[in-house]
Amino acid sequence: MTDDRAIILKADELPDKWYNILPDLPEPLPPPMDPPEGYSRVGDLPNLLIGECLKQEMSTERWIPIPEGIRDLFLAAGRPRPLYRAKKLEEKLGTPAKLFYKSEFYSPTGSHKVNTALAQAYYAKEQGFERLTTETGAGQWGNALAYASSLVGLDCTVFWVRAVYRWKPQRLKFMQMFGADVFASPSTQTEFGKTLYAEDSNHNGSLGIAISEGLEDAKNDPKAVYCLGSVLNHVLLHQSIIGLETMKQMEIAGEYPDTVISCLGGGSNFGGIALPWMGEALTKNKEIQFIAAQSEAAPNLQGEYKDDFADHAEMTPMLKMYTLGHQVTMVPIYGDGLRYHGSSPILSLLRNTGHLDAVAYPADEKYVFEKTREFVQAEGFLPAPESAYSVACAMDEAIKCKENNEKKTILFNISGHGFLDLDGYGEVLGLKPQPERS
Amino acid sequence: MTDDRAIILKADELPDKWYNILPDLPEPLPPPMDPPEGYSRVGDLPNLLIGECLKQEMSTERWIPIPEGIRDLFLAAGRPRPLYRAKKLEEKLGTPAKLFYKSEFYSPTGSHKVNTALAQAYYAKEQGFERLTTETGAGQWGNALAYASSLVGLDCTVFWVRAVYRWKPQRLKFMQMFGADVFASPSTQTEFGKTLYAEDSNHNGSLGIAISEGLEDAKNDPKAVYCLGSVLNHVLLHQSIIGLETMKQMEIAGEYPDTVISCLGGGSNFGGIALPWMGEALTKNKEIQFIAAQSEAAPNLQGEYKDDFADHAEMTPMLKMYTLGHQVTMVPIYGDGLRYHGSSPILSLLRNTGHLDAVAYPADEKYVFEKTREFVQAEGFLPAPESAYSVACAMDEAIKCKENNEKKTILFNISGHGFLDLDGYGEVLGLKPQPERS
Repeated sequence: MTDDRAIILKADELPDKWYNILPDLPEPLPPPMDPPEGYSRVGDLPNLLIGECLKQEMSTERWIPIPEGIRDLFLAAGRPRPLYRAKKLEEKLGTPAKLFYKSEFYSPTGSHKVNTALAQAYYAKEQGFERLTTETGAGQWGNALAYASSLVGLDCTVFWVRAVYRWKPQRLKFMQMFGADVFASPSTQTEFGKTLYAEDSNHNGSLGIAISEGLEDAKNDPKAVYCLGSVLNHVLLHQSIIGLETMKQMEIAGEYPDTVISCLGGGSNFGGIALPWMGEALTKNKEIQFIAAQSEAAPNLQGEYKDDFADHAEMTPMLKMYTLGHQVTMVPIYGDGLRYHGSSPILSLLRNTGHLDAVAYPADEKYVFEKTREFVQAEGFLPAPESAYSVACAMDEAIKCKENNEKKTILFNISGHGFLDLDGYGEVLGLKPQPERS
Repeated sequence: MTDDRAIILKADELPDKWYNILPDLPEPLPPPMDPPEGYSRVGDLPNLLIGECLKQEMSTERWIPIPEGIRDLFLAAGRPRPLYRAKKLEEKLGTPAKLFYKSEFYSPTGSHKVNTALAQAYYAKEQGFERLTTETGAGQWGNALAYASSLVGLDCTVFWVRAVYRWKPQRLKFMQMFGADVFASPSTQTEFGKTLYAEDSNHNGSLGIAISEGLEDAKNDPKAVYCLGSVLNHVLLHQSIIGLETMKQMEIAGEYPDTVISCLGGGSNFGGIALPWMGEALTKNKEIQFIAAQSEAAPNLQGEYKDDFADHAEMTPMLKMYTLGHQVTMVPIYGDGLRYHGSSPILSLLRNTGHLDAVAYPADEKYVFEKTREFVQAEGFLPAPESAYSVACAMDEAIKCKENNEKKTILFNISGHGFLDLDGYGEVLGLKPQPERS
């Protein structure tokens, strides 16, 4: 079978280095800054982040070796993951474009988030910590960290945006299967949370608030450390495994992408698939178009490019990024993982230098989910609501290729599966039980 | 990495033949029989089954080529699937045994059922049918056929045991994403269903009843054909892809199993992983122990070995099998896919000739789910409730190895994932949200 339907790597083809784009960026990345007033958040960073991750955050090494222990965890998590050619979808669309998608949906917890969760848990354990704290919005990141903590033998505390916590009871049980302590945020576990909870015990919460709670919880316990699942350089570094695998796979397929697409909230899955290719575009003069698929609920790449906090309570340093403002209110969407006020500093810089295009889809999600249903019926895999944006954007590009008779090669990432998000699809697409009487 | 943590096959290593055990059985398989009275069900078989499947049902060829079109569908469905060594679980149990598990959980719809669904849909399309009908209990089979129908371009009607239909609203939406028509059974779509529905519009239904409805629906429409997801020889033939891949993988790992384990309801996943190994045991004098993990709710291998119907309304021929009686009532369990009155004729024969051991676990599922939580916390993958029986049985065997200091190699199948079954785990394991006030 000389087919490129499924391009599979074996265990010994798992990349042994991560790609760090910092030395290849078109201009130097602005460092984290302190706000004009108050204590030094930058000085506080060594208390906020795992030592090895902080080192990676600043590293100017282009290639960073993946420790054997983490490669072993990646194998246990089902890496390397296959790359698929969307042949049935191409036929259905009648497009001359070739569509390839990466299968991060084959994840033990449901998304690409396990990639950095395993790395962070491994380094935290090495450094002697006994507990990890974090926030989660859609739940994918909290679930990934609960999983990683369980595999390496650490406790895990998750502060989960209350509004989402309430509509995802199955996701909560899944985190609990791994033994994690999960609190609706704002919670009564932290001083910051207590203040908001006292004002409104039904407070919906936000990712920014939950981050503040996770940070405070870890700061008050010397055996605990905080982990962040997106935005930061070291997170995108860990996620580069997605793109690096994909480069090997595209080489096997004998193809090179004209377009690389993924959804973008904070930027971890987008950076994961795109940055290794971006590195080639920047250093080898390759022509690749990069498109970030966003929601009109949180079109952060259309925001202002400026220094802003990563959290609501202003406990983090200020990062230079495209932001909607760290205390902005956003309408709820099922693709909740795209609902973050800022985009990662690395991707923001690339946006500012004109290397990154962006599109934002309507917040009612009807268009995106209808496209995704077409994808499901042709290809069979059910994307997470966030990944649905990636699918819709790739399909839009494929249809443009049909209109312009362009034989582009389009690569996109499906960052997670939607098995725990079927109610959202059902709601938007109006799926109802058949009436019992005929 | 010379590690055996993950043994991955590439697309060109996908087996190109299925293994048919019929010529290698220790004694000839008794043919389907007609009941002493009434019309000839055996004579009716050509109207009940897809032509190519009926041919395969009776075939004495040891190896049956997999058509290129079906191999292509297998690739699209994520085959070949990895084999994992459960190293973290071994450590946790402190067992000298080596544990390997096959990852049928990496399935677009959640289980191994896609293997025969794709084959049947492909052959039905080739034969000119436009619609597939079927029954489903746990929902995995109906979902797999909805998926396969969508991929090959056929309509699909699913009759779903009402009791399960009602507690799996997400699974229903998933089938609907593929465009299937799904009815709670007994339904008002068939004469047989109408009779039962008229007696009780809340009738819980049963797999036997739903099979009868699917058969009747197909018989009344010349463009429709009925598909069965377990029990029959051709289904086990299609599922042999699981065991055949695993044989290649164990060879790569340099291991040979002393014990092969899986859960067994009708027998499709058990047959899938076990029969190729059974063939070696029978023809090459290999010593392998085979253990079927069942529920005390449906311990059909402890039933009577006799001719019995496969459905409630007695529309199928009688098959020689271990059976609890085709109209038996069984208590509900979350591992609903194990709740069938009979075991496949092939596996029943092997049970009768002493080649197959069986164990039945308590119907409250506490023991099985607690074992599975240990597995989840060590290995990270969430098995389907049915597969949980396979996991628990493998762990029990590993613990026996520890007690007896035996270095056995144990191979087990995880036939599906449990992402749509978290409420069941939560219920049995008592997973509850944290109280909001601390």
